[in-house]
This record gives sequence, C-alpha cells and structure tokens, in this order.
Amino acid sequence: MKLEINLKERSYDILIQKGSLESLHQYVNLQRKIMVVTDEGVPKKLLKTVMDQCPNGFFHVMKQGEENKTLAAYESILRALLEAGFTRHDAVIALGGGVVGDVSGFAAASYMRGIDFINIPTTTLSQIDSAIGGKTAVNLDGVKNIVGAFYQPKFVLIDPVTLRTLPEKEFFGGLVEALKAGLIADKALYELFLSIREKNMEAPLLEEILLRALTVKKKIVEEDEKEEDQRALLNFGHTIGHGIEGLYGKAGFNHGECVALGMLPMIEDNALRKETEEILCRLGLRTKLDYDVDAVFSLIQKDKKGQGKTIRIVTVKEAGQAKIKEVPFETIKEILMEERS
Amino acid sequence: MKLEINLKERSYDILIQKGSLESLHQYVNLQRKIMVVTDEGVPKKLLKTVMDQCPNGFFHVMKQGEENKTLAAYESILRALLEAGFTRHDAVIALGGGVVGDVSGFAAASYMRGIDFINIPTTTLSQIDSAIGGKTAVNLDGVKNIVGAFYQPKFVLIDPVTLRTLPEKEFFGGLVEALKAGLIADKALYELFLSIREKNMEAPLLEEILLRALTVKKKIVEEDEKEEDQRALLNFGHTIGHGIEGLYGKAGFNHGECVALGMLPMIEDNALRKETEEILCRLGLRTKLDYDVDAVFSLIQKDKKGQGKTIRIVTVKEAGQAKIKEVPFETIKEILMEERS
Repeated sequence: MKLEINLKERSYDILIQKGSLESLHQYVNLQRKIMVVTDEGVPKKLLKTVMDQCPNGFFHVMKQGEENKTLAAYESILRALLEAGFTRHDAVIALGGGVVGDVSGFAAASYMRGIDFINIPTTTLSQIDSAIGGKTAVNLDGVKNIVGAFYQPKFVLIDPVTLRTLPEKEFFGGLVEALKAGLIADKALYELFLSIREKNMEAPLLEEILLRALTVKKKIVEEDEKEEDQRALLNFGHTIGHGIEGLYGKAGFNHGECVALGMLPMIEDNALRKETEEILCRLGLRTKLDYDVDAVFSLIQKDKKGQGKTIRIVTVKEAGQAKIKEVPFETIKEILMEERS
Repeated sequence: MKLEINLKERSYDILIQKGSLESLHQYVNLQRKIMVVTDEGVPKKLLKTVMDQCPNGFFHVMKQGEENKTLAAYESILRALLEAGFTRHDAVIALGGGVVGDVSGFAAASYMRGIDFINIPTTTLSQIDSAIGGKTAVNLDGVKNIVGAFYQPKFVLIDPVTLRTLPEKEFFGGLVEALKAGLIADKALYELFLSIREKNMEAPLLEEILLRALTVKKKIVEEDEKEEDQRALLNFGHTIGHGIEGLYGKAGFNHGECVALGMLPMIEDNALRKETEEILCRLGLRTKLDYDVDAVFSLIQKDKKGQGKTIRIVTVKEAGQAKIKEVPFETIKEILMEERS
C-alpha cells in the first residue's frame, strides 16, 4: 500500500507493507554512501536487515530517549557524516522512533544544507505521527522541538513487522495518535477502535488503522505544510498532554498516554467521551491521573509563552469533526481543575 | 535604490542607500522582539543606531573571525533567543560581516523551524557577496560551510556609510567579489574598475559597483536558488581561492585576496589577465603568492572530496562571459604549478 504525499517538488511516497524492510533496496537508491541512524533500543536485527542492503553503509547509534534529543546528538551525526566523507548525493536513513527520526532528519536537513533523508519509523507512535509532516527538531534547555527545520523525507517505509518487539505499553500508547486522527477527522477510523477487543489486534486491523491515520495527517499536512492554520487540528489533546508529559514523562508515562489525558477534557459530548475512555481502557491506558494542576498549568504557559493572553484549543463534539477555538489562557486552568475534581 | 529578489513566496527586497541604517524602522517591523547579532569588530555606534530603533530589542555579540563560525556560536544565539522568550513572530537581525550573517541566519532558520531574518551586512565583502543567496552556514572540524540551511532573509539593508570604518585592506579585498561579478557576467561593471585610480573611490562609483555586482548575483540566484547549475558560475576563482585561503587565511590574507589569486589563472586571455592584475594592484592587492603547491592542492582535494575524478572549473576569456568546464582533477595541479613557475 502506497500513500503519495503531494508537496510539489518536495513530494514523496509512504510505503505501508508487512516485511517491506527486507526490500528497502527496491524503493531507495542504496548504491551510494548511506548513514543509518538508530538507537540502543532498536533491535540489532532490524539494523542488520538494512545494513545488509547497503554496500557502502555506515551506522550511528544514538542513546535512547527524549533526553538525548539534543544539539549534541545532532552534532555527533553531522560529525559522523563528515568523517565518512558524505557528499550531497549521499543519504541518511532513520531507523527507530520519533527521537531518532527528528534528530537525524534535522542532521540530514542541514548537512551540506540538505541531503536525502529516508525515514523508517519502527514504533506505532512514529509510524503514525512523525512519518508525515517534515518536522525535524531537537530540544534545547528542556524546551521541546525548539530548534529544527521543515524538511521532507524522500521516502518513508512503514513495516508493521518492526512493531512486534515493541513493549506492549509503547505499542498501545502510540495508537492514541491514530485514535486522535479518528476523533478529529475520520469517524470510520474512530469506529475501528470500537472493534478492538482487550488488547487483541489482528494484523489487517492494525494496517488499516495505520493507513487511515496516515491519510488524515497527509490531507492536513498537504493543505498546510508550514503549520499556519489547519495543521493546528493535529494538536488535539497536545496542549494539556505536553504539560502532563513534561511533568510525568520521566516517571514512565508515555506520549500517547499523556495525549489521551489531554484529549478527554476536549471532547464536548459526554457519551463520546465515555466511549473514548472505554477504548483507552481496552488499550490498557489510563483515563485519569492525579496530577498537580498548578505545575501542569505553569508548564503549559511556559510551552506557549509569548503567544498572548489567549490560546488556541481544539475540541471535538462528534467523532470525525474538530473545531479550533481561541480561548483565554485561564480557561485551560479551569479545565484542569474540573478534570481533577 | 531597491533591488527585488524574486523567489516566489521567498521574495525580498535589498535596499542600497547611504545613511539608510538610521531609517531601518521604515522598512522592517521593529515593534516586536528583535535580536541583533553582531561581533566585537563592528563599531558600537552601528549597534546603537539599530538598538535605538527597537523598543523591544536584545543584542548578542559574537567573537570576531572565521574561527568562530561554529556550532557553539550558533547554539549561543539559539539560547539567547530562548532565554529572551522569542516566538515565531519575532525576528533576528544580523549586523556585521559574512560570519555574523551566516551564523545568525542559520540560527534564525532553525529557531522554531524558522523566524524572520533581516540582514544588514557592514563590510564590502558581505554587502556584495553574502547579502544575496540565502546560504547560511557554520563550519565543522575545519570544513567550511558544511552545516547550514538555504534560508532567505525578509529584508537586506545595505548602507555604504557602514563601510567607512572598515580597514583599507578589508574594504578593497571585498571588492574582489564585485570584480568577479564583472568578469563572469557584466562587462560594464568590469570596466568601472578600470576607472578606479589608486585606492581612490568616490561614493557614487562605490554605490554603482555594489548595485551592479548585486544585480549579477541576483540574476544567477533567481535562476538557480539551490545551486544546481548556473550558480556554479559564482564559484569563479573560488576553487583555488579557498585552497589558498585555507592555508594562508590565518596569516592575514583575506578572502578577496585569495579569490583574486584563484581567478587570475582562470582568465584565458593574456591581455585581460594583465589588465585584471593592474586593477588588483591599484586596489592594493597582491597578484602573486609563493604558495606551497602540494599543500594547496591537497586542501582543494579535501574540500571537493567525493565529487569524483573530475572537477568543475569556471573560466573567462572575455570580460562578462564565463564558461563552466569539467576537467580532470589533475588539471588543477598543473595550473597551480604553472602559476608558481
């Protein structure tokens, strides 16, 4: 299954296919210098599958985790490219989750002012979320994604087989981004989640969820590549979610879980909210957290600083239809307090 | 005098006007956070002229010199932006030579994936050369401009008054890039140089030289923004020039002088070469240097590594007309040896 992302001269394809990692060479020119960037958490077997197809391949292993999404990690990749004598005709392949993709994408965007970048996301979260959009970045002084580039990959390969070794919590947490896509723009996708039985998921169902979620994002990104307007819809659940993640991420709550907690109060229909909570339950994710309202609120303020006294939020009343609203900043605090009461 | 650079949605204006620094606010929205990046060598008076127009202004002073064109300097600017709470609606102004423009331009290109960048070059070299083209960059491990972005400024202000405090050698060295522009694409510009009498230059003549040189570059960049073809013409003199600069730059030879030494052997007509040498003489620049052929050649090889066994050179037979040629790498060595003999 191929999805074409149409961005004029920056267009590219996303391939979604079981077992496709083994035939990467059919889709990407590997007859040049290739730097595969991965992290310690990605199974060595996947790296070997890629390296075996690269006659002139190099690899660079990052440390795992959001705290390594730094300018220092970015510089290490640049230096690896330089030492291996990469030219502007060579390419970088990201093999891993969102952190690997974001950091190595930014390195590819800026090495010689841009060389080819191929993204192979290997987690549910990155397959759904960071494979489309061309947003590359690193964090600086604890502020997320503050430095980076809009840079489109030349090709994205999504092989659901790579998800098999993913810890259960990470697997299901990542699916929250697909649930989000359903809630904001695709009722049929949302309804697929209703058919999931307690943590059981057949391969065809997973592939359909991936494809539909990517299609939602594709449409939004094509209309608004540089995040000026419609793309804000994708932030559904993320304002509060990022606040919670900032505080509790290190305690083991993953991105998907935090976004889920950020989505729930933005669902304006009680029945829909209850149904969404049930879906999250079946995925093994929490629907409540006893968080510190003041601390979460102050992180949200810091995150959005300088954007004025109001803030844009995204709300959903009916599955598949979202609205962007401008509300006073204080409204967020009221919502947080209501959630906790 | 205004020059419009037409690059679709990335179009911008260049203003060339004596005393225009004082009326910057007429051309750029300064009613927002502004970070003025400059270096120790730029007169404080110029910084004050800009800061006085910025009600919400900040400034960041870099160390002077090519050796500070680093990822560390880039990171310092990013951190200054972050600490001052810059948002994507704020702007960076570069006030200085090419290094200041290149590093702060790259910071503006990547802070929040791109905020407004205004360039105010204050040296002849940067006014002629780096004000157009959108090439931002830093060096890494001694390799020039290996990390950066194509990022167009929103506005470029060229005030010839800022050149008054420039050391004579830097002033005339920078003019070599204008002489280059004349040789490759504008005979009338070349002929203006014939009218320069021993280091005397009236203001109107200087302004006309700046304007014509910028016009040459404008045309080439508009046709080839990402340096795929025609833009190679601008490299006239630079292959050998960079090699010489790499070796002798630290000994006090500036960019213009080195490019001049790189241009001469690429002029294929003896009379034209002799005349060009006389122009350089009158500018107080050297036309001969007893360089180490092997060392210069090996630096050129390193610079162009991985580009294969041939190299593209630019030659000029008649003022205003250049040719791009693909020659074996060894030809460069032969040229160097001939120059030294």
